[in-house]
Amino acid sequence: MRETVVVLVGPKNEGNVGAVARAMKNFGVGRLVLVDPCPIGDEAARRAMHGADVLERARTVATLDEALRGADLVAGTTGIATQSEKKFLRIALGPHDFAGRVAAMDGTLAVLFGREDFGLLDEELVRCDLLVSIPASPQYPILNLSHAAVVVLYELFAAGRAKGRLRKASGAEKEVLNRAFKELMEETHYAPHKRGRTAVMFRRLLGRAVPSKWEFHALMGVLARATKTIRRQRGPKGRAESPRKI
Amino acid sequence: MRETVVVLVGPKNEGNVGAVARAMKNFGVGRLVLVDPCPIGDEAARRAMHGADVLERARTVATLDEALRGADLVAGTTGIATQSEKKFLRIALGPHDFAGRVAAMDGTLAVLFGREDFGLLDEELVRCDLLVSIPASPQYPILNLSHAAVVVLYELFAAGRAKGRLRKASGAEKEVLNRAFKELMEETHYAPHKRGRTAVMFRRLLGRAVPSKWEFHALMGVLARATKTIRRQRGPKGRAESPRKI
Repeated sequence: MRETVVVLVGPKNEGNVGAVARAMKNFGVGRLVLVDPCPIGDEAARRAMHGADVLERARTVATLDEALRGADLVAGTTGIATQSEKKFLRIALGPHDFAGRVAAMDGTLAVLFGREDFGLLDEELVRCDLLVSIPASPQYPILNLSHAAVVVLYELFAAGRAKGRLRKASGAEKEVLNRAFKELMEETHYAPHKRGRTAVMFRRLLGRAVPSKWEFHALMGVLARATKTIRRQRGPKGRAESPRKI
Repeated sequence: MRETVVVLVGPKNEGNVGAVARAMKNFGVGRLVLVDPCPIGDEAARRAMHGADVLERARTVATLDEALRGADLVAGTTGIATQSEKKFLRIALGPHDFAGRVAAMDGTLAVLFGREDFGLLDEELVRCDLLVSIPASPQYPILNLSHAAVVVLYELFAAGRAKGRLRKASGAEKEVLNRAFKELMEETHYAPHKRGRTAVMFRRLLGRAVPSKWEFHALMGVLARATKTIRRQRGPKGRAESPRKI
């Protein structure tokens, strides 16, 4: 079973927050988290309509870290999808593709929407396992906040009507994989200035692939084994030993 | 070539009209027709943002007949099918299906959205060549007017758009990655009877992630480096050397 949490990061317009709550109710999503929001008052309640209960139960937190505690997969939305492979920080899936990939996942999916004017900041984007960008006119690609939420929630709802049952790797398991990948880079003396972005590349690749528990264990086995082999050969003081069964 | 016209029938909230204009601009639709609307003022302009030109050029008419003059295909939107006595009136397509069907049409497509409270009346629905209904929670299936427009316009835009342009890793490149993964398993003495299925796991993971060329190079770098490090440490006769920069 998947639970979806909508996280609004730094919303500035309470009307938008209310409209998002309504859209969540329309598409059967109950958990809303507000990170450092504007004051939420009557206008938000008015726009929420029958989504008022979603708005009332919304959790307000000070930092993104708090908002993401317990999330197994973090999806960020961005208005600026890039065509450049090097700007991998902003390589994004379309909402339809995204919804299809997470349809069968277990655990908690957090979907992040940024500020009305600046969206999500780079340091927030690196926290995301994958990005979602809504295709739109190059003339004016910036959607209203609640409109962006509607598109993503609509696709999640539509995809959820036909879902599979394969158990997916949890957020904690994917973190273990990400750590193992970093350790392997360290042990192989991978160029230090490239490690950061290559680590994010790996995180995004995993995010898009949505690995199963079995795939987690198998991939983890290979990465951990490579690191162990290198360490054992190198020995405690950089001295190497002959290979043996680990 | 298809031209799309958005027709709002009896809108009661000018903010919604502005928000629809913005969404139209986002999805490259320029023609808006308002049938017997509420007064359109500052709030509409404010919500239209950079869609203000769409709002200014909107045509206001008194009747649906006027609005539909010249339309080649008329699509009406309706909330989830209710217990209408004339059920056949409300047999509807989903937005995705609808967009796919009209993607290749020539001429003028009119998409009708009804009043915020009552939607389209039965005598308006009979004017429609087809109906579109947005799947939503049975608990609260009624979307905000501009939200309904966003979903339909998004689907029309997505269907009319060419596929992504990001350069993907080729089949040959993915084979190189798969070979590198196998070599790493060999060098680390990964249990031989498990190698086959773990190799398939990796292949499937890559298949689902659809890596870009850049991601291919980055991942390849890490895997190849791990294998080389192990081989170098082990030396030509199983003898190891001290680690050095590769």
